Amino acid sequence: MEDSRATPKAESGKGAGARTESGAGPGADLHLDLPRGGGTGVRAALIRSLRDAVRTGRLAPDTRLPSSRSLAADLGIARNTVADAYGELVAEGWLTARQGSGTQVARRVVPPEPAPPRTPTAAAVAAGRPAYDLRAGSPDVSAFPRSAWLSAARRALTAAPSDAFGYGRPAGRPELRRVLADYLARARGVRAAPEQIVVCGGFAQGLALLSRVRRQAGCRWMAVESYGLDIHWKVMRRAGLRTVPLPVERHGARIGELDRLAEVRTVTLTPAHQFPTGVSLHPDRRAAVVDWASRTGGLVLEDDYDGEFRYDRQPVGALQGLDPEHVVYLGTASKSLAPALRLAWMVVPDHLMDDLLAVKGTGEWQSSALDQLTLAEFIDSGAYDRHVRGMRMRYRRRRDQLVAALAERAPGVRVTGIAAGLHAVLELPPGTERSVVQGAAWQGLAVDGLTRFRYQDENGAGANGAGAERGTGQPQEQPDALVFAYGTAPDHAFTGALEALCRVLP
Amino acid sequence: MEDSRATPKAESGKGAGARTESGAGPGADLHLDLPRGGGTGVRAALIRSLRDAVRTGRLAPDTRLPSSRSLAADLGIARNTVADAYGELVAEGWLTARQGSGTQVARRVVPPEPAPPRTPTAAAVAAGRPAYDLRAGSPDVSAFPRSAWLSAARRALTAAPSDAFGYGRPAGRPELRRVLADYLARARGVRAAPEQIVVCGGFAQGLALLSRVRRQAGCRWMAVESYGLDIHWKVMRRAGLRTVPLPVERHGARIGELDRLAEVRTVTLTPAHQFPTGVSLHPDRRAAVVDWASRTGGLVLEDDYDGEFRYDRQPVGALQGLDPEHVVYLGTASKSLAPALRLAWMVVPDHLMDDLLAVKGTGEWQSSALDQLTLAEFIDSGAYDRHVRGMRMRYRRRRDQLVAALAERAPGVRVTGIAAGLHAVLELPPGTERSVVQGAAWQGLAVDGLTRFRYQDENGAGANGAGAERGTGQPQEQPDALVFAYGTAPDHAFTGALEALCRVLP
Repeated sequence: MEDSRATPKAESGKGAGARTESGAGPGADLHLDLPRGGGTGVRAALIRSLRDAVRTGRLAPDTRLPSSRSLAADLGIARNTVADAYGELVAEGWLTARQGSGTQVARRVVPPEPAPPRTPTAAAVAAGRPAYDLRAGSPDVSAFPRSAWLSAARRALTAAPSDAFGYGRPAGRPELRRVLADYLARARGVRAAPEQIVVCGGFAQGLALLSRVRRQAGCRWMAVESYGLDIHWKVMRRAGLRTVPLPVERHGARIGELDRLAEVRTVTLTPAHQFPTGVSLHPDRRAAVVDWASRTGGLVLEDDYDGEFRYDRQPVGALQGLDPEHVVYLGTASKSLAPALRLAWMVVPDHLMDDLLAVKGTGEWQSSALDQLTLAEFIDSGAYDRHVRGMRMRYRRRRDQLVAALAERAPGVRVTGIAAGLHAVLELPPGTERSVVQGAAWQGLAVDGLTRFRYQDENGAGANGAGAERGTGQPQEQPDALVFAYGTAPDHAFTGALEALCRVLP
Repeated sequence: MEDSRATPKAESGKGAGARTESGAGPGADLHLDLPRGGGTGVRAALIRSLRDAVRTGRLAPDTRLPSSRSLAADLGIARNTVADAYGELVAEGWLTARQGSGTQVARRVVPPEPAPPRTPTAAAVAAGRPAYDLRAGSPDVSAFPRSAWLSAARRALTAAPSDAFGYGRPAGRPELRRVLADYLARARGVRAAPEQIVVCGGFAQGLALLSRVRRQAGCRWMAVESYGLDIHWKVMRRAGLRTVPLPVERHGARIGELDRLAEVRTVTLTPAHQFPTGVSLHPDRRAAVVDWASRTGGLVLEDDYDGEFRYDRQPVGALQGLDPEHVVYLGTASKSLAPALRLAWMVVPDHLMDDLLAVKGTGEWQSSALDQLTLAEFIDSGAYDRHVRGMRMRYRRRRDQLVAALAERAPGVRVTGIAAGLHAVLELPPGTERSVVQGAAWQGLAVDGLTRFRYQDENGAGANGAGAERGTGQPQEQPDALVFAYGTAPDHAFTGALEALCRVLP
């Protein structure tokens, strides 16, 4: 393509796009820049040109496009190519096609008026920020209990000994470690003495530290789930470990694979609520993984990121409770309270403690002692339990609302996974994920497809090699789906977000 | 020694210590475990045994020890060996020797009675914690402005937008970056736009990030000052850089050496107040280092850890002001406010910004947004300036008190370095550093000798190789000295700490 443009011949004309400038047809205001010749190159270029024209506003919302026949004639290309391009752009949400009114430029969704404070504004949308961010990762931070937190801070800072304002110890403030030991036993069935708890600045820091400890102990591999966050895989690799995926199915990660992987001695799992597929690890597999660990001297890193939030029953207790010698439990305040705190915690078997503190203590960062003291007081006073209880009801209500809305408006879309956490997986008709995600983007909805969380190795290849990429097999293992974080939006915006989502679902 | 014990012959006897058990002399209560034979092994073992006996309380304070003649006879060793050992332990402060009363076990210093709240207690001393910690690094944390901080937190958290409670950006909260740009220009002559400021979790994090950025850019070396903190050298080495020292003299680091070090493109300096020697970088050398940087494409990391505290004149402005393109300025709240906050900041040239944020953004930790917002409000409201002003007066008073006390009580000890910061270097008579530090330890004073801060390479060798170790040359370059942090103790304990220090000075 580029070559043909560079030839004198191409320069002498103005390309296919030139015709529309002078043409009198309905496509006259389209400045399309198409390569000469036909085939898929023309189709792709037409899609790109039309998309750009819509995005930049050259084609205003509601503008009626020429019929495919007329534009094809205008451009001197096949009618099918134009019809195909229109179809794709409709799927992506840039265009709409209605019986009787032809193809039009879609209207963009703007937030409901009058815009409530601190929801995205039309200006934000225009600036490229989404009207609704439905991506997983953050809780509803508008619900942060500012006043209760400030009260706890006042009590904590007033009571703190002077040395609390000095350089801290790598393990964290003793006040917080004490309170957490008690809370985790009560809420998550974790078996921990305060001395086993290490405070860290988020799950990723804990993972980085533990990865380095394992690498120093001679481990070279980390097994991970075949769906998860690429940032975590990067953290492991930066510590010098190689990663290998365990396929995730209805019953969670295929633990049996570990027996095939003779060199692997460490595995990171999300047993209570697999991220992001939403399944929970089957009891047989829970037993199998601790059996594997004690049999081989292995270590399980249990990422319990949203263990507090289960809606249909009592949460399953932490895996760590089964075998505290072979499981490191990792919890966080990022989902239950706020990511801004940068506070998380690990429960560490005695035999790892010295190595872990040595790594954390030399040049590694510590967490704000003031926030640690405040969180200790916040938990100890019961405010944390109250907050979690309130949020659990709120998230549960939203999930119910989601399920009901889908049943009514998008019966072809299935909610999979257990009733837990801050996000749900919406299974889509095969082959539609990409166009739904793109269509949502155009409608001002930032939402991720499940594909984005699929395991990739250092070179960007998929879990089972490039041949297993989407569309070439195993549809039940690699479904088309959206990961919809019903927990993220502020309460007043949730209904609007859900409404907007329903509009883009097939 | 271990070998000889393992032989049947050694087991048949009970070693030299056995004799004192059955002896009737004044050393009868000494359970000394000495090797057979004579020489330095016996002397060292005797010193160790006596020290342990004193430390563990087997020999109570004021216990009079046998004369060297009598103990020597008791143990069947040379009298000189015993006299030598006694002399060493007197120098270390475990024993006292007075005319007419022979050698006695020293009394330990305990804090003045009645013990004020939150100073070390007798129990703490007994548990091995020092009565006074005079080591450099921490400000007087008892002066943390709790109430002003809490007020700022209330204002900041109440006004914060919801998204402040979510995951933050690697560069830090915009509120804080804005306020810091203004403050640093005003207080330290730093030239910075808010967009150039990156918040980090302490100087060490900033150093780690910048070291990695330089390593990625192909640098292999970091030049450092020949006195400093080993933790910083470790941070650089962990990032893959090798370190090379520039000798520190009266006019600061010998910048001219950089021209000899063709491969070095990065240097870390403490220009305003060299840590810990206390000298400031001579104006000619300030000019020379920025000249070197712009000539060679080099980079200076300016560690301005205590730039707010100068007592004899206005602080010298930041080096960064001379050449913002080639100097990264690093400041911290750890000295001006409290280490517990884990908040520091970098001012980064535009050309490094993308690389730095890329490193910080992938899996690196962020600082508590709540503390960032509170610090922004704390500075913006003027509370930070007020606090620094108050602390400056307090530290200056203490330094004056120190200088006066030394002039009166220890005229042989000289305070070197500029009137600035939170610590002073007390130059001792040659050859006395080690025994003064050890003697201080026994008196319940934790204080570091200057030697502890001398540059060592990865293998623990000194700045100029093993041959340059203390005692073998260049006494004016490697003086015997104490690093006394007059800034660390709470106000009510400072006089006691100073008094205790004077008692152990020669």
